[in-house]
Amino acid sequence: MLRTHTAGSLRAEHIGSTVTLTGWVDRRRDHGGVAFIDLRDASGIAQVVIRDEEVAHPLRSEFVLQVTGEVARRPEGNTNPNLATGEIEVIASEVVTLNESAPLPFQVSTAIADTEQIGEEARLKHRYLDMRRPAQARALKLRSQLSRAARSVLEAHDFTEVETPTLTRSTPEGARDFLVPARLAPGSWYALPQSPQLFKQLLMVGGLERYYQIARCYRDEDFRADRQPEFTQLDVEMSFVDQDDVIALTEELLAEIWKLIDVEVPRPIERITYADAMRLYGTDKPDLRFGNPIVELTAYFSATPFRVFQAEYVGAVVMKGGASQPRRQFDAWQEWAKQHGAKGLAYVTFNDEGELGGPVAKNLSDTEREHLAKVTGAEPGDAVFFAAGKTAASRALLGAARQEIAKKTGELDENAWSFVWVVDAPLFKPAGEDDDIDVGHSAWTAVHHAFTSPKPEWLDRFEQDPGSALAYAYDIVCNGNEIGGGSIRIHRRDVQERVFEVMGIGHEEAQEKFGFLLEAFKFGAPPHGGIAFGWDRIAGLLAGVPSIRDVIAFPKSGGGYDPLTDAPAPITPEQRKEAGVDALPEPRHGAAAEPVAAAK
Amino acid sequence: MLRTHTAGSLRAEHIGSTVTLTGWVDRRRDHGGVAFIDLRDASGIAQVVIRDEEVAHPLRSEFVLQVTGEVARRPEGNTNPNLATGEIEVIASEVVTLNESAPLPFQVSTAIADTEQIGEEARLKHRYLDMRRPAQARALKLRSQLSRAARSVLEAHDFTEVETPTLTRSTPEGARDFLVPARLAPGSWYALPQSPQLFKQLLMVGGLERYYQIARCYRDEDFRADRQPEFTQLDVEMSFVDQDDVIALTEELLAEIWKLIDVEVPRPIERITYADAMRLYGTDKPDLRFGNPIVELTAYFSATPFRVFQAEYVGAVVMKGGASQPRRQFDAWQEWAKQHGAKGLAYVTFNDEGELGGPVAKNLSDTEREHLAKVTGAEPGDAVFFAAGKTAASRALLGAARQEIAKKTGELDENAWSFVWVVDAPLFKPAGEDDDIDVGHSAWTAVHHAFTSPKPEWLDRFEQDPGSALAYAYDIVCNGNEIGGGSIRIHRRDVQERVFEVMGIGHEEAQEKFGFLLEAFKFGAPPHGGIAFGWDRIAGLLAGVPSIRDVIAFPKSGGGYDPLTDAPAPITPEQRKEAGVDALPEPRHGAAAEPVAAAK
Repeated sequence: MLRTHTAGSLRAEHIGSTVTLTGWVDRRRDHGGVAFIDLRDASGIAQVVIRDEEVAHPLRSEFVLQVTGEVARRPEGNTNPNLATGEIEVIASEVVTLNESAPLPFQVSTAIADTEQIGEEARLKHRYLDMRRPAQARALKLRSQLSRAARSVLEAHDFTEVETPTLTRSTPEGARDFLVPARLAPGSWYALPQSPQLFKQLLMVGGLERYYQIARCYRDEDFRADRQPEFTQLDVEMSFVDQDDVIALTEELLAEIWKLIDVEVPRPIERITYADAMRLYGTDKPDLRFGNPIVELTAYFSATPFRVFQAEYVGAVVMKGGASQPRRQFDAWQEWAKQHGAKGLAYVTFNDEGELGGPVAKNLSDTEREHLAKVTGAEPGDAVFFAAGKTAASRALLGAARQEIAKKTGELDENAWSFVWVVDAPLFKPAGEDDDIDVGHSAWTAVHHAFTSPKPEWLDRFEQDPGSALAYAYDIVCNGNEIGGGSIRIHRRDVQERVFEVMGIGHEEAQEKFGFLLEAFKFGAPPHGGIAFGWDRIAGLLAGVPSIRDVIAFPKSGGGYDPLTDAPAPITPEQRKEAGVDALPEPRHGAAAEPVAAAK
Repeated sequence: MLRTHTAGSLRAEHIGSTVTLTGWVDRRRDHGGVAFIDLRDASGIAQVVIRDEEVAHPLRSEFVLQVTGEVARRPEGNTNPNLATGEIEVIASEVVTLNESAPLPFQVSTAIADTEQIGEEARLKHRYLDMRRPAQARALKLRSQLSRAARSVLEAHDFTEVETPTLTRSTPEGARDFLVPARLAPGSWYALPQSPQLFKQLLMVGGLERYYQIARCYRDEDFRADRQPEFTQLDVEMSFVDQDDVIALTEELLAEIWKLIDVEVPRPIERITYADAMRLYGTDKPDLRFGNPIVELTAYFSATPFRVFQAEYVGAVVMKGGASQPRRQFDAWQEWAKQHGAKGLAYVTFNDEGELGGPVAKNLSDTEREHLAKVTGAEPGDAVFFAAGKTAASRALLGAARQEIAKKTGELDENAWSFVWVVDAPLFKPAGEDDDIDVGHSAWTAVHHAFTSPKPEWLDRFEQDPGSALAYAYDIVCNGNEIGGGSIRIHRRDVQERVFEVMGIGHEEAQEKFGFLLEAFKFGAPPHGGIAFGWDRIAGLLAGVPSIRDVIAFPKSGGGYDPLTDAPAPITPEQRKEAGVDALPEPRHGAAAEPVAAAK
C-alpha cells in the first residue's frame, strides 16, 4: 500500500506516530505561510499542515497526494468536534504529488457538501467526479450494504445463488426485448431477459428448491422519469411453499435491510386486498404513512338531483382544514385535476361553524347536505373533494388527491415508513388498458404475468369469469412504491395451457414461445412461488434520494443515453456486416423458424 | 410450507413423530404388496413405505409427492449405513400426488448416480432434469458457495460491490463486441461489455478505492471448447496499491475458496517470471503439479553436425522410463507433434545400461552423445524428446510434450493442486500473432490490455524498446489454467497516450474510443490496480468437472446455441423495424458520429 493509514481513521491515540496518507486535496487554506490541506480519502478527512511554502504552493483542489508526517494534537482552539479526526493534524515532512488535477467542472469538496446544485447532465458526464461527493459516495456504499444484508438472510435460509443467462430467447413479459444479433447464426438474434422468470421456474423444476440472484434485467421501454433500460432485481424462488412462506421470508429480508438505516420494520406487515386498496386508496400501491381513506358515496347519492353525481361511482376525500384555502387554491385544484385527466374536482367546504359551502353544495338535496359531514367524516374547517363517473378513473383521481392533500396538510411525514402487502389481485385484466405490451391476443391479458397461479378456489373455474378470478399474487408496497411483487406459480401443464387459452395464446403459439417451459412441466414440476424486488428502488428509498439514478453507479439519462461514454453509438459497416445483422436466418433443426425478410 | 421436514434431515431422533415430506420419486421397489419409495428432495433421500397397493400403484419415477407418515426404525437388517437417513423409514398414512411425470428422456435417480453416460445435447435440452442428478446439483451449489466465500473475504476488507452497466459503448479489448440496437436512438447501438475494465477504473478515479463485482462479461468469439459467449468474472480493483497488495488479497481469496473443498493453499504462492515460465515450461500458464522442466540445449548443440539442430533454439524434455515404449508409441508421438503444428518430435532413448539409441543419436557428434544424459538429466531407461527451430514454437511444443508425458507416466497427480504467479510479462506483443482482435494499428499490441502500466523501471522509456518493456501485470495459474489476471493500471493521461501511441492509436482515435477515460485522467486519478478471476473456470476446477458448462446453470452449446430455449432465434419484421436496426444514425450533440450506411 502507498499509505500506512487511512485519513479518516486517525485519532488522538495516533499522536506522536509517523504516518503516510494518500488522498485528494479536498480544500486548502493558507495562514501566514502555512498551508492547511484537508486530505480526503474514502474513509474521511485529515488535516495536513505543510510549513514549506514551496511544497504547498503548487497543490490544487483534487491533486492526489502521498503525505508522510507526524500526527500531532491540534493547537488549542483549533479542534473540530464535527470531524472524526478533528483532534489531530498531520505535520507533513514529505509530500509527493501522485497525480495532478485540472480545474473541475464542478466542486466536489466535502466542505461544500450538498450545498451546491449541479445539473444532472454534468453529474452524469463526469460521474467519476460526482461520486467523490460524500452524498453520492454514501449512496453507492449503502447499495453495496443492501445486497450484503439480503444475501446474509438468504444464505441463512439455505438459498443457492444461481446466475441465469442474459443472452437468451425473447419471452414476452409486458415490455419490449432488447435484441442482440448472433454472428455465429447469422439472421438469428438473442434477447436480453426482462427478468429471470422462466429460468428460475426451470430451476425449481430442476429440484434446486431455493434460488436467489441479484439479477440484471432489461426492458426496452419508452423513457419515463426513473426508469432505466437495464435495472436490477433481487430475484427469489422457492419450491413446496405457499404465499405465507414467501411473505415471511420477505418480511425477514425487509427487516434486515431497513436495519441498515436504523429503522425497525413492524412484523407481520399489514395485508390489504387489491379490491380494498383500490376502494380505499384508489391505487394498488397505497401510501399508508397517513390515513384519510376514500369515502365511497355511490349509495349515498343514489337518488341525487345533481346530474354530475348521477354516475356509476361517487366518492370523496377529506382535506383537513381545507375550507380555509383561498379561492385561487381551489382553482389550482381544478388545474391539478385536469392534469390528471379529469374534468375538474368538485368540492364542498365546512366552515368553522360546520356550515356547508362551495359550488357543489347548492346542487345537493337537503338530506344529502344534512348528513354529508357525517358520512364523509368531515369536521368544521375541512374541505371535501369529490369524483364521480367511471369507478376506476374516479378512484384513481381521489387516490391521487389524497396523496396531494397529505403533502399540503403535512399529514405526510417524510421520515415515516409504511409497509403493506397488497394481495388477491385479479388474475386477468382487459387487454389494451395500459401501455404495457399485452401478451396474447384475446380480450384478457395477465395482471402480473402469464405464469401466475390462480388462487386455489379459482383453479378449476377461472375461465368462467376471467374478470373476477383472483391471482395467487402479492405485492409489497413501501411508502406508495411497489418495491417487490411475486406469486405462487402455475406448476401444472394443463393449468398453464388453460391460462394461455384465456389470454388468446393458442397451442401453437404457446409451443413456439414457451414450449420449453411446457415441456419441463411434463416431468414432475413441484409447486413453487417466489418474488422479485426492485433493487434500484429499494436502494433509492434507503438512501433517501429523489431518483434511482442516484443509486446506480453509471446510469443512463433520458432516452437511454449515457452522457459519460456517449453510448449508444453508430457502428461501422464492418461491424454491421460481421454481426450478421442483415443475414437471412437459416432454419435450424428443431427450431420453428419464421420466415423473416430483412425489412428495408 | 407443504412439508414439516426435509427428507434428508430425518434421523433416529425423529422416530415416533409424524412428519410431512415433499419430493420426487427417486426409485420404487415392491416387496410382497408393500412399496418402498425413495423420496428425494434437495436435502437428500428418505425411504417411504406404502402399504396400500392402490395408493402405491400409480406412482412413477419423478412424480412429485407430499407424504405424511410416522418415522419408524427400519427393520433389523434393512438399515443402510451409506445413507444419512438409513436408520429410519416413513410409514405413509397419506400420499398426495402434487404432480405427475412423463417417462424421462434420461434417468436422474440417485441410485444410478454418475453411472450413466448421457449425451451433452440431451443434458442441455433438458437441463432441468440434468440438474436433478446429484453431481450436477452439487456443482451448482458449490458455485454459489464459491461466490459467498469470495464476498466474505472482500467484505472483510471493506470492498464496495458496484454494478456496472452492460448496455454500454464498444471498447475494444481483444475480442468482438456483442451489439444491441438502441430503439430510442435509431441507428445507434450499445455494446455488451467484454469486462467492466473501464468502469472499474472510473470508480477508482471516483475515489471508491476498493471495488468488486461478480460481473457478467460478453465476448463474441468463434466457438472453442470451453468458451461461452457470456461468462462471469470476479472483478476487483483497488487504489493506492502496488502489485504485492493485489497478490496478497488474491492469496487470501484463493485460500478461502479452496477451503470449500478442504484444500489448503500454501502461502505465499510461488512466483515465476513470464520469461522463466516460457523458458522452463514453454507456456505462460505452467502446470506445476509436476516438475520436469524443459532443458535448453541451444548452446550445447551450437556446433552440431545435425542439420535439424542447427537452429535458433534447441530444447528437450525427458520422459522418465520412456525408453521402453514400443516403436508404435514413438510413432504416435510423431502424430501428436503434427497435431501440434510441428513436423515431428525428434527423440533419443537411454536403455537400461544407459546406452544411447533412437533415430537422432546417429546424427550427433561423439561429444554431443557423450554428455547428453548429463545435460538433459536423463537416466537409464528414459527417453528424451527434442524440439528445434523458432524459439517460441519450439518451447510451446516441448511444453505441451511435458504435459503429455506427465499424464502418460503418472507424474501428474490429478488430485494435486499447484498455484503459481506469473509476473513480469511483456507490455507489448507483435500484432497479428494470435486470434485476438488486435487493438490499434501498429506493429505492436497489448499483451494484457491497453490500460496496463509498464513496470516502474520502464515507465519513462517503453517506447524505446517496446518488445522488451515489461508490464506491471500478474497472472495467477492453477494446475495449468490461468484463473485470474491483473495489473497495476496506468493512471496518468500522458502515459496512457504514449502507450496508445506505441499501439498505433492516434490522438483522434484515442479520443473517440477512450475519450472519457482520458478525460477522467485529467482530474486526479489515483494510482490503482486490480485483478479479474475467471469465475466459471474456478468453479469448474473446484467441482472437478471436465467443462465449465458443468458449473453454468444454463450454458450454450457449440456456436452459442441454447438447446433448451432454441436461442438465438429469428425475429419478426415488426421487431426488426421497431428496434431501428436499419435506421441511419442521427448525429447527436457531442457524439463523434461516423457516417454509416446500412450495409446491404
